[in-house]
Amino acid sequence: MSKLRVNAFSLSIDGFGAGPGQDLENPLGIGGGALHKWAFSTVTFRKMFGQEGGATGPDDDFAVRSFENVGAWILGRNMFGPVRGPWQDESWKGWWGDNPPYHVPVFVLTQYARQPIVMEGGTTFYFVTDGIHSALEKAKAAAAGKDVRVGGGVSTIRQYLSERLIDEMHLAISPVLLGAGENLLQGLDLPKLGYQCSEQVATPLATHVVIKRA
Amino acid sequence: MSKLRVNAFSLSIDGFGAGPGQDLENPLGIGGGALHKWAFSTVTFRKMFGQEGGATGPDDDFAVRSFENVGAWILGRNMFGPVRGPWQDESWKGWWGDNPPYHVPVFVLTQYARQPIVMEGGTTFYFVTDGIHSALEKAKAAAAGKDVRVGGGVSTIRQYLSERLIDEMHLAISPVLLGAGENLLQGLDLPKLGYQCSEQVATPLATHVVIKRA
Repeated sequence: MSKLRVNAFSLSIDGFGAGPGQDLENPLGIGGGALHKWAFSTVTFRKMFGQEGGATGPDDDFAVRSFENVGAWILGRNMFGPVRGPWQDESWKGWWGDNPPYHVPVFVLTQYARQPIVMEGGTTFYFVTDGIHSALEKAKAAAAGKDVRVGGGVSTIRQYLSERLIDEMHLAISPVLLGAGENLLQGLDLPKLGYQCSEQVATPLATHVVIKRA
Repeated sequence: MSKLRVNAFSLSIDGFGAGPGQDLENPLGIGGGALHKWAFSTVTFRKMFGQEGGATGPDDDFAVRSFENVGAWILGRNMFGPVRGPWQDESWKGWWGDNPPYHVPVFVLTQYARQPIVMEGGTTFYFVTDGIHSALEKAKAAAAGKDVRVGGGVSTIRQYLSERLIDEMHLAISPVLLGAGENLLQGLDLPKLGYQCSEQVATPLATHVVIKRA
């Protein structure tokens, strides 16, 4: 059955999924880049960004898993870009250049309507203005039996978790303290929502935990 | 120089150092026992509680380190016992039986004065009613050049962290979700307080992180 998944979502020890102050120069917020050291070390992510080398092993295994059987993505608007409020024009097309690493339909949650953007390599960005349930419905239809992956950010994942809609979530806890930013789990009682930790694999760069809904 | 340390303090993935509902039957709060699976697996902790067997390796290395060079302890009152409010009588002498695993002076923070309790094996419980700075001063004097270890709980550690008095803190993050309880780091900006993660060692049972003040 088609699942709603979160994969390879990096967190700091103190629970932040991004640093404070996201902008053009700091797409992951200040200090947020350090969260992803484990990912940047892997063959899979390096290849995705056109770089050679990288390691195989457990970090890479999780990177590989993160892209398997994904038929559509859902992204929060802040993950799509730094623009806030109404779209000023049509120029912003995501952080990822002409050929984004999705290669499937991507549904972007926003309050401001915008025409779909067809990118190179199979990625089309659709803008959904009528909420998380509608985005999920559209993404499931587009995924045609494959899974839907919620890319983030924190606020989007929290909304889907609160509604018990996430089936499976892979977090990578990095040995970093951020101190401020967006906290993923604060105030969410995951066991009460039916979630349990089902897997833990630790490497020198991250502790990977998989959380599943019972 | 004598340090103020936290060691072997277990946290859930969602940041809780104890489960909710601590009482006589659940000294670690509901579900809190699962946090300490890594510790209960080690030779060192098993021996301390009179049990045979157990594993050596990185979990045990941290268990060993946690007891090295400790000249005195500081405990919050809730860590000493489930009694709340004024002491009803002198009967409660801690969770640990006649010969507690401290073997040095232990300073218990409380609002309610009580005479010291001399236990077997070198442990004496002293009750400190004039705050965390006073407890630290007394503990440092008693430790005679050795380190002082803050045993917990969460509230006590948070108070010492907020005042930048902890020199070094070893946390063991266990692959467990608690959902509620006492959150160790929520609302504390550790980098701003001068703390950084200096070491990470991961095992199947826990991710050990060491946090130090610059």
